Amino acid sequence: MQLSHLFGQTLRAAPADTEVASHQLLLRAGFIRQQATGIFSTLPLARRSLARIEAILREEINAIGGQEMSMPVTQSADIWKESGRWYQIGSEMGRFKDRNDRDMVLAMTHEEVVGQLVRSEIKSYRQLPALVYHIQTKFRDDPRPRAGLIRVREFTMLDSYSLDSSWDGLEHQYQAHYTAYFNIFRRCGLPVVAVKSDTGMMGGKVAHEYMYLTPIGEDTLLFCDSCGYSANRQVARFARPTVASEEPLALEKVATPGASSIEELCAYLNIPASRTAKAVFYTAEMNAPDGGPASQFVFALVRGDMEVNETKLANLIGARDLRPATIDEIKVTGAEAGYASPVGLRGILVVADEIIPRSPNLVAGANQPGYHLRNVNYGRDFTASRVGDIAAAGEGSACPECGAPMRSSRGVEVGNIFQLGTRYSDALGCKFVAEDGSEQSVIMGSYGIGVGRLLACIAEEHHDDKGLIWPASVAPYPVHLVALAGKNADIAEKAAHLARELAAAGLEPLFDDRSESAGVKFNDADLIGLPLRLTFGERSLKAGGVEFKLRSGGESWFVPLDRVVAEVGRVTAEQLEPYRFESHQTQ
Amino acid sequence: MQLSHLFGQTLRAAPADTEVASHQLLLRAGFIRQQATGIFSTLPLARRSLARIEAILREEINAIGGQEMSMPVTQSADIWKESGRWYQIGSEMGRFKDRNDRDMVLAMTHEEVVGQLVRSEIKSYRQLPALVYHIQTKFRDDPRPRAGLIRVREFTMLDSYSLDSSWDGLEHQYQAHYTAYFNIFRRCGLPVVAVKSDTGMMGGKVAHEYMYLTPIGEDTLLFCDSCGYSANRQVARFARPTVASEEPLALEKVATPGASSIEELCAYLNIPASRTAKAVFYTAEMNAPDGGPASQFVFALVRGDMEVNETKLANLIGARDLRPATIDEIKVTGAEAGYASPVGLRGILVVADEIIPRSPNLVAGANQPGYHLRNVNYGRDFTASRVGDIAAAGEGSACPECGAPMRSSRGVEVGNIFQLGTRYSDALGCKFVAEDGSEQSVIMGSYGIGVGRLLACIAEEHHDDKGLIWPASVAPYPVHLVALAGKNADIAEKAAHLARELAAAGLEPLFDDRSESAGVKFNDADLIGLPLRLTFGERSLKAGGVEFKLRSGGESWFVPLDRVVAEVGRVTAEQLEPYRFESHQTQ
Repeated sequence: MQLSHLFGQTLRAAPADTEVASHQLLLRAGFIRQQATGIFSTLPLARRSLARIEAILREEINAIGGQEMSMPVTQSADIWKESGRWYQIGSEMGRFKDRNDRDMVLAMTHEEVVGQLVRSEIKSYRQLPALVYHIQTKFRDDPRPRAGLIRVREFTMLDSYSLDSSWDGLEHQYQAHYTAYFNIFRRCGLPVVAVKSDTGMMGGKVAHEYMYLTPIGEDTLLFCDSCGYSANRQVARFARPTVASEEPLALEKVATPGASSIEELCAYLNIPASRTAKAVFYTAEMNAPDGGPASQFVFALVRGDMEVNETKLANLIGARDLRPATIDEIKVTGAEAGYASPVGLRGILVVADEIIPRSPNLVAGANQPGYHLRNVNYGRDFTASRVGDIAAAGEGSACPECGAPMRSSRGVEVGNIFQLGTRYSDALGCKFVAEDGSEQSVIMGSYGIGVGRLLACIAEEHHDDKGLIWPASVAPYPVHLVALAGKNADIAEKAAHLARELAAAGLEPLFDDRSESAGVKFNDADLIGLPLRLTFGERSLKAGGVEFKLRSGGESWFVPLDRVVAEVGRVTAEQLEPYRFESHQTQ
Repeated sequence: MQLSHLFGQTLRAAPADTEVASHQLLLRAGFIRQQATGIFSTLPLARRSLARIEAILREEINAIGGQEMSMPVTQSADIWKESGRWYQIGSEMGRFKDRNDRDMVLAMTHEEVVGQLVRSEIKSYRQLPALVYHIQTKFRDDPRPRAGLIRVREFTMLDSYSLDSSWDGLEHQYQAHYTAYFNIFRRCGLPVVAVKSDTGMMGGKVAHEYMYLTPIGEDTLLFCDSCGYSANRQVARFARPTVASEEPLALEKVATPGASSIEELCAYLNIPASRTAKAVFYTAEMNAPDGGPASQFVFALVRGDMEVNETKLANLIGARDLRPATIDEIKVTGAEAGYASPVGLRGILVVADEIIPRSPNLVAGANQPGYHLRNVNYGRDFTASRVGDIAAAGEGSACPECGAPMRSSRGVEVGNIFQLGTRYSDALGCKFVAEDGSEQSVIMGSYGIGVGRLLACIAEEHHDDKGLIWPASVAPYPVHLVALAGKNADIAEKAAHLARELAAAGLEPLFDDRSESAGVKFNDADLIGLPLRLTFGERSLKAGGVEFKLRSGGESWFVPLDRVVAEVGRVTAEQLEPYRFESHQTQ
């Protein structure tokens, strides 16, 4: 490919509104362009990398029995109404009316259509297990698209769906994906960890996320280095501290002027935050019996030294969404923001963290401005509608498995796997006749990797100040050939000849044939980041050879012209070695 | 692939609402399933065929310099407002609002996004010519989806866009596509003809369609076997018959009771239809100056032996849409349906076919029920606002080039190519600096092939009563291996071994390992239509060989076991021969 005619220009500087390195570099190197907020075109260089990633995805999913198919992007909403997600999912879902005023959905995932197909295609246990997948466009109307391809609205996803006749079968296919996903990320040059995760809008019981650990990530993860426990903060459990037992003391109202925060309260009364109860108010959108949303006021209570984990809280009460309650909504309940306690309130959904009943003599609000109550005790002074795990784990929280302190890290989710079970089969009527003649629900799993986000994370992981440094497995071209011809037609012609020789050997170069200076050309080569750079200039004519240099660093070396093609082949093969397909066994 | 686990079941009978053979067979053979009206999932067998078609598309477009990229399906409407098509296109366009209430478009084609990219990426004539393409999802809300994948609402399209600095450059890239498209269809086993076509919503001046000729087609095409002229009926020109000159006779009103049609009128007055003028009324949606639609009543006048061609009429007056006028709309003008003439009407847009001014002494309506006028003469008795080519060519019309009678045929459009010129560059500001330093508009062409429709047309062309007969180039698998094991585990095991051997040799079979009867298995093999069928049964054990049979017909033959893999390779290579890539020169 001649760089002079490559569609997509390199840019000297990144646009002002970009912050993340992969976003800046993919723009500057001419890989991507924004069409609208969170919607991108991928230019030819990116398309080549994406094609290589997609080939790896296909190879690995085929290796565990995947059958590729294709399900539509635009869909009748009927099937989403059957599954209930038409009602459960909010404005993240793209919806439109067709010319006949029928409700249509832009696919954000494909469980519904898989279910629609399964109920027509799967009749017998003899057809199971099966695994279907596609690599297809999705639309999710994210409220906060950011960081280039990392958080977008339209994206391409590999999504696979396992179909089994038994829970053991699901476990087996789940494990097969668990391993295949690690293979995929290894082959793409991206280090990841798998953590337990929230099942979110997918439903089901068990889920893992593959996390690329990076400070730019929006997810927080907790790890126990002692026993290996790991989880997304959204669902991370932790061992609550031991609480010494005390006799309940008499309830006492104290003036605490101006102490409307836990911090102020602790300073005023000179007590640790662990001796206080903290109230947080939400308005939850519940899934009402008729499928439509219904509002529910929620009084969440955690210890003052902890925070509410909204995902855990939503999951505990079965809410589809939570938002902070407004001052007006709080007032109606009789609670007093800043000085609230559940003591004396009636008819309110109070949800307390599991440590609250075990924590005696807490300081809580008095539901009166400027006053708190001392020696509040669960059971005696108030009870909660629900008690459960609603506090957030954080850096230093005790591991729920072994008790060692956990560390936290930021990450970007690059893949997730879900044991859906019969969530969709039951809703959509996906039945098969089992070996014993009984009719049973197909047991499903679903598994997904965002292809563009994966590309962006690879760029994030592999770059330096000068530009991108592609792993050989996903580089758009194996080699960048820089011709430094000046006005020397002989150099230009011989360099072009070399470019053709390389292409004929299956090593097509990106050939910089432009009439730019050496500095511009080398800078662009560093920016685009192909694994190997060849320079063909004056010295090539005189000494009959070409300068080789790896983008990843190290000294350059000089190779005689008649051995250049072989040497490019050797270097490329060597660089591909860590990323090759390995047949693997699933556990 | 084991047929027992293939996702997608064969069906004994086609659903009742299907008529076209390719639609019925693709459903019955388990290739496609409908998700909603005009929206389909493609199951694993179809996906494999589509992948092979897409590989052919890429190879041919890369060979003429194409750079693959990817542009989004969901798009901000802003760019469509800039081009004007947001206003020009009606309900065929999928539109939705995002969560921030911004207008969004579902891509129906990608000229706008290409333009958006070109204006940021193309600065200089040195970067031209260029050719970019993608294979991407489109949505067009067709009012009449039909015939399975032939006429759908969501589809995958190969669309390429040529960018040139000169009109000669456009002509060159247009010719390159003209040839490449013939190569593509040849390699997919689909016979096509190229005809001149309407530019429709694309704009621009020159366009060709690739037509697969078939009685199920909805397009009508006209061909001159004498000189080779061909065109879609929508735009086909034709030589009007010679009209003998006559002196204008005096206008005369005659009673013609009950003669409200041309046929009745001719019978009543005993004259040929060619001596009459026929009025047809339309309401046109015009493109108003502000971009919004405006209604315009149109009085179209052709000779009684001809029909109005609505595409020609719309193009002549610059309408974006035409529909028959209602009785009420006609009444308002003073015209009398069934007895209408332009004589005496005022303030009406009258459009006459080019033969009208040359046709003396016509019979036309008197704008009075039951009466006509004899000896109506253009110029003397009435004039038209516009005179032009608005009559439809048909079977037997004289060729506009050589005068020979043309024949008509039905066809399905499987590809089209457009010389857009500067239609989009001007609207979107795609400028480059020319060699002489001047700023000029990029000259564009656009080119498209619907991938699913192509698959369906191949199925339509290649089938018999028993099922599909795939050309080797697009068959999902090269060979169908039928094991007739009954309860003989030895046969089952040896057949499975052969399946693995074939797969290892790059000739993966579709392996029918089910416990079905020979009849069911052979019927399914015929239905699915892979090029070669192998049968492994009792005789294979006894005589140590396998029965070979081509799906396309002919005698079966028996091949010793140790030569089966080589023979499959030989047959497959032989069958692929007519479809191979040939390097080609563009004119």
